[in-house]
Amino acid sequence: MHVDLALVGFGSVGRRFVRLLGERRDRLCRDHGLECRIIGIATRRHGWSVARDGINLSDVLARVEAGLALGLPNGPPALGASDVISALSRSAADLRVMIETTTLNIADGQPAIAHVEAALDAGCHVVTANKGPAAFAYRRLRDRAAANGLSFLFEGAVMDGIPVFNLVRETMPAIDIIGFRGVVNSTTNHILSAMEDGEEFQPALTRMQAEGIAEADPSLDVDGWDAAAKTAALANVLLDADLTPHGVDRVGIGPASASAARAAKAQGRRLRLVASAARIPGGTVRAAVRPIELPPDDILGRLRGMANALILSTDVLGDVAITQSSGGLTQTAYALLSDLIAIARMHHA
Amino acid sequence: MHVDLALVGFGSVGRRFVRLLGERRDRLCRDHGLECRIIGIATRRHGWSVARDGINLSDVLARVEAGLALGLPNGPPALGASDVISALSRSAADLRVMIETTTLNIADGQPAIAHVEAALDAGCHVVTANKGPAAFAYRRLRDRAAANGLSFLFEGAVMDGIPVFNLVRETMPAIDIIGFRGVVNSTTNHILSAMEDGEEFQPALTRMQAEGIAEADPSLDVDGWDAAAKTAALANVLLDADLTPHGVDRVGIGPASASAARAAKAQGRRLRLVASAARIPGGTVRAAVRPIELPPDDILGRLRGMANALILSTDVLGDVAITQSSGGLTQTAYALLSDLIAIARMHHA
Repeated sequence: MHVDLALVGFGSVGRRFVRLLGERRDRLCRDHGLECRIIGIATRRHGWSVARDGINLSDVLARVEAGLALGLPNGPPALGASDVISALSRSAADLRVMIETTTLNIADGQPAIAHVEAALDAGCHVVTANKGPAAFAYRRLRDRAAANGLSFLFEGAVMDGIPVFNLVRETMPAIDIIGFRGVVNSTTNHILSAMEDGEEFQPALTRMQAEGIAEADPSLDVDGWDAAAKTAALANVLLDADLTPHGVDRVGIGPASASAARAAKAQGRRLRLVASAARIPGGTVRAAVRPIELPPDDILGRLRGMANALILSTDVLGDVAITQSSGGLTQTAYALLSDLIAIARMHHA
Repeated sequence: MHVDLALVGFGSVGRRFVRLLGERRDRLCRDHGLECRIIGIATRRHGWSVARDGINLSDVLARVEAGLALGLPNGPPALGASDVISALSRSAADLRVMIETTTLNIADGQPAIAHVEAALDAGCHVVTANKGPAAFAYRRLRDRAAANGLSFLFEGAVMDGIPVFNLVRETMPAIDIIGFRGVVNSTTNHILSAMEDGEEFQPALTRMQAEGIAEADPSLDVDGWDAAAKTAALANVLLDADLTPHGVDRVGIGPASASAARAAKAQGRRLRLVASAARIPGGTVRAAVRPIELPPDDILGRLRGMANALILSTDVLGDVAITQSSGGLTQTAYALLSDLIAIARMHHA
């Protein structure tokens, strides 16, 4: 099956995806019958490029990493997204997929949502690692994809490449998810782990920024916005909620969390930033992100550093937990790849 | 899609499956387009029955639970399996699936393997909760299913209905599993949990037998055979091994484990019966079941009572763990249902 891809967004995740696609080329062909070609790349800082018989990827990677433009100029907010989507829509491949990896805009999820809509309207499947579309506009995008006979997948939005959305959709059919609890933000989990071992908030944060774990502007993480976006996406998909991150009851962590983390540890308990949601009587969904003291046997309390976990409460299976020991770029890039293969399976010719 | 089923084995799992199928009838139809009918049941103790336009299930359940025969006489080893498989093979339904729920024979996996072979040769898909076929004859059965364009699934063989085999097959494509570690036997985990809290082996075992958790003959559990069968099945499927339970390096638990469990707990560690396998240099797979002292942060060490977990080591995602808080009949029956839906998806007309 011939697959043509257009990349919208080409930061570290997009570049790692391109490399992973190369590393797994033989495997994709042998095990899944897929031959993938990238025919367009739209970037925020390096212009955009289209080549209908496939972009020279080593050339593109070399140019971008040397700080050079890809060829065609562009500038925010245009990005060249509409140009590469338009090129993708004219491809004669068996499968046309936009790979969206722009960064989360916590105000309203844009322009990622517009990218998804444009691709779906142009007859292209969508895979994104951006939390925005599922967190701000899941129902609309799900229905638009369904109306066009297309897929809209976003495994990379939560817990990197660990199957969460695909886990429920593919392996837990005919059951109901009643609620969930999880630790889904690595930066805050790192800081809380360090603080319970005696470090203060600011030094722990500074160290994590130096190690490249925390962002230069850490507010998205420490104020709980990243976790709230993941919570909204999970609640929208798994509990059929109609939430945005702004509808999640949200408390972050800060300098005062240090003594709370140490006090919890002194009692054999652990302070963790817990994301949760559940359907409440009447049918609406209540969702929250807040630091919670967890008892010793709680799976979430045992997570240190980069480890994340999600516990799904179900009507038939009881609680099912999935845990990742560590996450990062490669795992997020793999999420894109696993979604791509899922689409190929669902829409095989 | 019309699905005809034949049940081989009709103990507690088979009966719970029949009830679950009834409870989820609307859901199966609405979400998956499946209309299921049971056209044959073969039992060890109650005879067998075939009805080409569908068996009256409430009647069958009532008869079996009153200790009455189903209609047609039979006796071990015949079971009536060949009769119900033969009836299934003549069905004109869109999908024909044998549901195999006989109990594990740890000597050689029979007669379950013969049931699977007979069904595959008769053009029927196979779903089983029995560990024997995957633990003793996976390669042969996999290849025979593939040669006939059929599926052979067995999610219920390990961790009840928690997705393990389906998890890897459906949601972790194009990666390699390098090895695994898990706690996969509930009876021994229960006993070890009780012993670390101060109980001795025999009273703990007797209590679990009284509660219906342990079997009257507990040797399959406490000697590690149940875990070894699961380990062989996991290794055969996930690591492409060619093992039987007898090729698993196996140590069980006994009265002497009580002091070991307490000594571990006194040091903040936990004694657990750990199932594991890994590919060793040269490409062969080494598999073991043995009590191991685990450090405090090990996911497996935190499992108490009926909780099970499996940690998969992968080349791309690092370690991925899946945990079930509690297992039982309903979960195992759900495994059969989830496999049935997986087959319908794979072979949709």
